[in-house]
Amino acid sequence: MRHSEFTSQVCSVARSLEIIGEWWTLLIVREAFFGTERFSDFEANLGIAKNVLTDRLNTLVDAGVMRRTPVPGRGNPVSYSLTNQGRDLLPVLVALMQWGDRWVNGGKAPVRLLERTSGKEIASVRVTNSDGTKLGARDVVIVPGPGADAAIKNRFGRKDD
Amino acid sequence: MRHSEFTSQVCSVARSLEIIGEWWTLLIVREAFFGTERFSDFEANLGIAKNVLTDRLNTLVDAGVMRRTPVPGRGNPVSYSLTNQGRDLLPVLVALMQWGDRWVNGGKAPVRLLERTSGKEIASVRVTNSDGTKLGARDVVIVPGPGADAAIKNRFGRKDD
Repeated sequence: MRHSEFTSQVCSVARSLEIIGEWWTLLIVREAFFGTERFSDFEANLGIAKNVLTDRLNTLVDAGVMRRTPVPGRGNPVSYSLTNQGRDLLPVLVALMQWGDRWVNGGKAPVRLLERTSGKEIASVRVTNSDGTKLGARDVVIVPGPGADAAIKNRFGRKDD
Repeated sequence: MRHSEFTSQVCSVARSLEIIGEWWTLLIVREAFFGTERFSDFEANLGIAKNVLTDRLNTLVDAGVMRRTPVPGRGNPVSYSLTNQGRDLLPVLVALMQWGDRWVNGGKAPVRLLERTSGKEIASVRVTNSDGTKLGARDVVIVPGPGADAAIKNRFGRKDD
């Protein structure tokens, strides 16, 4: 029911959440970033029920976030990996992780993310202008985009249009 | 049940998702960024049931993401706004919105975010090193942080430690 309600929302946040806005789904994506490929490893690392894991992996494959690849051998005949679309979730995942480090885990990050080549901590994910200057919520205005429907135009359009 | 399973996961992604990783919850945060303050406006803009909205607003207030402020007048005796912790979700929300613009809405963004002072489109949210160089998933390594538990140390620690 929630799904069908969202379908009427053209907003990219709402539509993205239909795919990845559910706890297990995003944790599966996190596991894939960590390098997990096999069904049994997702199951063990997440402590997730088989039927739920099957369902969420199917959702992610159908949505184009992950791909299923046959592998040689018995027992685990497929592996799962992120597509380009899936790897492009890195900023979402890292931004969420860093927010949790600051506000939920009290500044004590359970894991640190380092640049592979330098070994240095990566930067905080920020919203910036095209020059790289950090922007806060009050520095940003919302206007209708090319995919706006009538409701969005009415809500965010200039009043003198 | 899902909640209690997550509590055992020290990971900041998992613990953040306990607070904001549910469709309605993050859409309520989105609405608050859009400037919505009153219960009746959240209800109308999201098309959400009163009891669900009450529950999710309580979760967000209890978690410190939003605050409830009494306002003068009849009918809507309180307003809701983002705390600093809530406003700090901007990178998560913008990263998710931009991902949806690219991959779900086929490049046709329903809304555009502009820098208020310049009127120019904001940049894509990226994961970068401290010099501002963009990093992909393969450029990043994961190591235990100060909040790591034994499981994380075992999984991500150096094998020669």
